[in-house]
Amino acid sequence: MTVAPEYSTDSGADELWEGVQPQPARRLLVAGLGLFAAQGFHGTTTRDIAARAGMSPAALYVHYRTKEDLLFRISRIAHEAALTAIPPESPGSDPAGQLQAAVAAFTAWHARHHTAARVAQYELTALEPAHFRAVAAVRLAIERTFRKMIERGVAAGEFEVSDTPATALAILSLAIDLARWYQPGSRHTPDELGDLYAGLALRMVRSGR
Amino acid sequence: MTVAPEYSTDSGADELWEGVQPQPARRLLVAGLGLFAAQGFHGTTTRDIAARAGMSPAALYVHYRTKEDLLFRISRIAHEAALTAIPPESPGSDPAGQLQAAVAAFTAWHARHHTAARVAQYELTALEPAHFRAVAAVRLAIERTFRKMIERGVAAGEFEVSDTPATALAILSLAIDLARWYQPGSRHTPDELGDLYAGLALRMVRSGR
Repeated sequence: MTVAPEYSTDSGADELWEGVQPQPARRLLVAGLGLFAAQGFHGTTTRDIAARAGMSPAALYVHYRTKEDLLFRISRIAHEAALTAIPPESPGSDPAGQLQAAVAAFTAWHARHHTAARVAQYELTALEPAHFRAVAAVRLAIERTFRKMIERGVAAGEFEVSDTPATALAILSLAIDLARWYQPGSRHTPDELGDLYAGLALRMVRSGR
Repeated sequence: MTVAPEYSTDSGADELWEGVQPQPARRLLVAGLGLFAAQGFHGTTTRDIAARAGMSPAALYVHYRTKEDLLFRISRIAHEAALTAIPPESPGSDPAGQLQAAVAAFTAWHARHHTAARVAQYELTALEPAHFRAVAAVRLAIERTFRKMIERGVAAGEFEVSDTPATALAILSLAIDLARWYQPGSRHTPDELGDLYAGLALRMVRSGR
């Protein structure tokens, strides 16, 4: 829970941004990400971003309409990647195994990409309405994925929960809150946290207690 | 999980700040809180805070040395109140009942004071080193309180966990993540969320599965 007084980012090498082309657009996006994570969207100017990317302020506008447009690209890519990180549910499989795999992957993703997750999660209110709606649709898809897995386990008699939507949100909180406290050098690796939290999530839903 | 595109605060009436005296100091603190929550510490100037409090920029410096000093007061008060919200552990009591009461109170506190929690949790890196250490001490006390409750239940054979510190952090995440998504008008009241999460936390630690 004790966080170092400086927020460190190491996301320059993050494979999340590989699809952002051309290369100067990616450099600007990674510069913006680091600044938004450290000092917030409202505390960062386009001039700061251009300077950190080693480019002129005008160059930013070649690739991004506004600072908000750059934030939107970060947020959409991060949300879509978090959704994609959840392994697809195969119809014949065991609900507990499915939920365990999903929580493990979703948790590890948030530890590994904690800087992207931080900006994607904490700067939602800075998005323009149309951009917010696009991101909210991905958020809803994530929430529904977990809700359905719980419903499937309940239907099979393996799970027993008093409130499926609230339990899904609680499981998401375990993973998403890593954006707040996880740092490289934390006591556990992303995969270890994934395994730990998958075990805790299963305990939260399993019947027969 | 879907958050409205504007961050709303209603903490002007929050009883948390009743001890902040004299009254202009409190008004400035509440103004700073709302702005930090909506646009971040780095995105807010002392001029913004004074204007929102209906005071002159110079008046702020009568009560706060710097903008960071105002943040520190918010953060310290919020952290100490969150710690104080946890009911004291009575030696003869049942570990499950104790943990349940603690999680319920700590969760409800974070929903009720979601704006204060948001600023206290998300702006830690903006604190000066000495201020950070003061707040970190309270954070550690909170973490230890939960860890000890789990250890007590394990020693009594009531709980069975694979990793006590990680489980304590996960339980804290359930509550603290409300600072990210809780809004007045959410589907559950703070007390309902407290009861729900207390039940989930107990499932996370109970033995005999």
